[in-house]
Amino acid sequence: MPEWMSQYRREWLSGDLIGGLIVTIMLIPQSMAYAMLAGAPPQYGLYASILPVIVYAFIGSSRYLAVGPVAIVSLMVSSTAVMHAEAGSAEYGQVAILLAWEVGVLLVLAGLLRLGVLANFLSHSVISGFINASALIIAVSQIEPLLGMQLARTESFFPMLAELARQFESVHLPTAAIGIGAVAGLLMMRRPLEAVLRHMKLPENVISVATKTGALVVVIIGALVVWLGDLSANQGVSIVGEVPAGLPALAIPGWDAQLALDLLPGAALIAFVAYLESISVARSLASKRRERILPNRELTALGLSNLAAGLTGAFPVAGGVGRSGVNYAAGSNTQLAGIITAVSMAMCLLLLGPLFHYVPKAILAAIVLIAVMSLMDVKPLLESWRYNIADGASTLVTFLAVLLVNVEIGVLTGLMFSVVLFLWRTLHPHIAIVGRVGETEHYRNVLRHSVRTCPHAVALRIDESLYFANAHALEETLLRTLSDRLEVKHVVLICSAINFIDFSALEMLLTTAERMRDAGVTLHLAEVKGPVMDRLQKGRLLQRLGEGRVFLSTHEAMTFLHCA
Amino acid sequence: MPEWMSQYRREWLSGDLIGGLIVTIMLIPQSMAYAMLAGAPPQYGLYASILPVIVYAFIGSSRYLAVGPVAIVSLMVSSTAVMHAEAGSAEYGQVAILLAWEVGVLLVLAGLLRLGVLANFLSHSVISGFINASALIIAVSQIEPLLGMQLARTESFFPMLAELARQFESVHLPTAAIGIGAVAGLLMMRRPLEAVLRHMKLPENVISVATKTGALVVVIIGALVVWLGDLSANQGVSIVGEVPAGLPALAIPGWDAQLALDLLPGAALIAFVAYLESISVARSLASKRRERILPNRELTALGLSNLAAGLTGAFPVAGGVGRSGVNYAAGSNTQLAGIITAVSMAMCLLLLGPLFHYVPKAILAAIVLIAVMSLMDVKPLLESWRYNIADGASTLVTFLAVLLVNVEIGVLTGLMFSVVLFLWRTLHPHIAIVGRVGETEHYRNVLRHSVRTCPHAVALRIDESLYFANAHALEETLLRTLSDRLEVKHVVLICSAINFIDFSALEMLLTTAERMRDAGVTLHLAEVKGPVMDRLQKGRLLQRLGEGRVFLSTHEAMTFLHCA
Repeated sequence: MPEWMSQYRREWLSGDLIGGLIVTIMLIPQSMAYAMLAGAPPQYGLYASILPVIVYAFIGSSRYLAVGPVAIVSLMVSSTAVMHAEAGSAEYGQVAILLAWEVGVLLVLAGLLRLGVLANFLSHSVISGFINASALIIAVSQIEPLLGMQLARTESFFPMLAELARQFESVHLPTAAIGIGAVAGLLMMRRPLEAVLRHMKLPENVISVATKTGALVVVIIGALVVWLGDLSANQGVSIVGEVPAGLPALAIPGWDAQLALDLLPGAALIAFVAYLESISVARSLASKRRERILPNRELTALGLSNLAAGLTGAFPVAGGVGRSGVNYAAGSNTQLAGIITAVSMAMCLLLLGPLFHYVPKAILAAIVLIAVMSLMDVKPLLESWRYNIADGASTLVTFLAVLLVNVEIGVLTGLMFSVVLFLWRTLHPHIAIVGRVGETEHYRNVLRHSVRTCPHAVALRIDESLYFANAHALEETLLRTLSDRLEVKHVVLICSAINFIDFSALEMLLTTAERMRDAGVTLHLAEVKGPVMDRLQKGRLLQRLGEGRVFLSTHEAMTFLHCA
Repeated sequence: MPEWMSQYRREWLSGDLIGGLIVTIMLIPQSMAYAMLAGAPPQYGLYASILPVIVYAFIGSSRYLAVGPVAIVSLMVSSTAVMHAEAGSAEYGQVAILLAWEVGVLLVLAGLLRLGVLANFLSHSVISGFINASALIIAVSQIEPLLGMQLARTESFFPMLAELARQFESVHLPTAAIGIGAVAGLLMMRRPLEAVLRHMKLPENVISVATKTGALVVVIIGALVVWLGDLSANQGVSIVGEVPAGLPALAIPGWDAQLALDLLPGAALIAFVAYLESISVARSLASKRRERILPNRELTALGLSNLAAGLTGAFPVAGGVGRSGVNYAAGSNTQLAGIITAVSMAMCLLLLGPLFHYVPKAILAAIVLIAVMSLMDVKPLLESWRYNIADGASTLVTFLAVLLVNVEIGVLTGLMFSVVLFLWRTLHPHIAIVGRVGETEHYRNVLRHSVRTCPHAVALRIDESLYFANAHALEETLLRTLSDRLEVKHVVLICSAINFIDFSALEMLLTTAERMRDAGVTLHLAEVKGPVMDRLQKGRLLQRLGEGRVFLSTHEAMTFLHCA
């Protein structure tokens, strides 16, 4: 039994009930809309909102995470699946379900291997570029159903834009009217409705619930309009169509090994992104109440949720940003809210399934459009650019790679770029020659401060750990210092900012110390940290320093060398 | 005019003359032997020792580097070329020459783009694994010509070993006798001869020259024996055969674009290794006399040398470890020694060309075998393993990958492995909660020292720069500290070992500071370095700290928080 269940308190119930129901209200239209985005039939989204949610409620370490279909994962499902099956075909649905199985297996494996730490390799800069580009692709991809257009399938963003421009005369006016009306309605149901209700002095919780019903109200109105006007038959407005009544059957799909193998890279990336989105939302909500999220437990919980999705014929799921936030804000205290959501979704499916038939696709497109618009945010790009051009460049490179090629290549490009960038930074460590400040025991950079030095002994501070890629930079500096200053007889290397020294750097120090000795110069070390010293004692450096010594402080070294 | 030439002093002449001639004596047999190793006709090696050497003499920044054919580059030429042409065919020779052109162009480009720093990405551990494995492959590959065996071509080391064992009955006894005799002769010409000559009280310089003539003496004796006994015709001993008389003609070869493109990855790796070998030898010799090596100038010089190799119909060249060391030890002062080497090699080719005809291939194999044996050194592996298992693992992974697959894949595997390893190290930074030591102003790790702390304020020291991959580790620690210690109201983050903070880490600090504020805890910073502070002032962190402050020292912070 999960912790929250065994320690459940009666006063949490009302919050969980309200939270669970509000999430259900949001989830009914969103789940169908995200299914459309994933290129799958609407029931895939509804199924993804039942068993996976219950599984997470029992295993996950977050009390507030609302699991289910999310926009970016749905986009990734579509961009992976279209490479292996015709969109809309029965095989396409099977590919989406197989993806859920694979994502589940990979996440569970990652949890067992405690690989949660891997997610950290995606930097904020890369994520920001990736999310902005994905949101832009999703938004533009919804213009086709929103306006009832007929487009040829395109491989990436810019060809899609070109195709949109070319086929603009294919806009279907009745559909476009419904779509644009839905966008307007959805926008009205947010801030303007909130302002009106507040002006009417209604209680806050009523206002909060009312503004969350926006999408559901629009869906109901849209379905009624289409049904009453028989717009599907009369005008050719595209509708959701048959939604099978009843709960999903549990099934393990047949699959062929080659397809499973081909899908694996796509599944790995979906798993990566699903975990990343979930853990960051879960962390952000947990910290508000000083609770903890266990990364490897989250991997397992999310993995089992995805296996549950696969088992009930749904596509991959994750913890969504929007619904989780609403869940928390609505007063949910535990995952009982999730169980309530799942149960209400199941009842919806049982009782209302046939009513979904008349929902116009243009309205689902409007819901996706409005949902992803909140994901777009250029502020991080501008801020990171101002903070550090290199970080801004990571965002831009990822953004462009996602738009120009696809989500997978884009994320990998961003990942590689940011790793190379990090290595590049450590390649050129800040190395300062330091001198004594007045009569103090402080030693500071000779270029920044007015300090005293002496001709026969020089103190160098390196502000970086020493490893293979930057060892030569220190070697260069040491050798240049010696060739520039022929009067130097002692060099003190200040190690206060060295957090580790790898074997290549150790070898460099060894050979440099020997070369210096050959040239009549002694190398000393100062302020070596405990863990670094432990390791150096296993190497031969300390023995090979010859006359050189290891000093506790720079001042001690310079005093010993008659330089203080 | 190069610097050494404009400032040439008469007293340098005798050293340069002796150095240049000793290198020539070594180079005549080695150049033919390495040509055989590269799978090319012997004149390719001789040509590689003329114009490229002169070009380097005028441009290179090392006074002692002896450029020409080297063992590992020759092996790499062979392993790249056999993938594109039949060994021994005319096309094979064209591929080797095209490789020299490409290596030259890539190195010159790298010099223009100032990419010398890239070479640092190959760690000592990877280089050690790569060189040991390459030397082992070269040594084993020479058993076939040494014993006159007939082997099927194999793709990598272990199949080659298996083929050697299977075809052992194909050993050609007369050839084997010459080969083993040559190995014995070469070994005798080193230490034993040196001991005998020293015992005869001959002058040191005579001893030094005499021991360097070993390979040439063995070659001359071998050629005489084969010629006198007509062993090639009578016994079928494999000989070098026709060496075209005269100097190489300058030629730009015809080439097809597809082949050039296919060779590019191989050429890039050869360029990388050639530069690496040259720069490390050049650096090590320069530092003995406190001289400097300019990495980007070396790239250009080595690039133009390789273009010269391509122009004169030779394969890629590099600065050799052995000959450069001998050059320095023999008393060379400038690159005039290189020019003397090149001129003597050219005269050799003009006058002695036809005499090379009878040199048995088994003797060239013996020379390669002895030369690469000095490259094998398991000590670094053992030492790195003892110093740090991770570094030892890099060596081992590279060694095995080179043996199991090939040099190219091996080096790339080692490179990736060591980069991932480095990232892994920075992923788990050492984070310590510190407390006050006695009545001093020092704050140390509570787990290692007996220190005083207080319940409402905790001081954390992180021993690593903050970037995307490890930012979460700090976030985790901060949040865990807060959830474990509900009485904490202030957290002081000690930044003395933080050399930079990237945008992802800044964002993490921002959100963490806000989450902490939501939970009623204030984040303070202490001991922030100048360059880090400069950057933080561009971000929003300092404004968002709220009540939080930036203190110069930990003690100042703890005093302010009534915790000292």
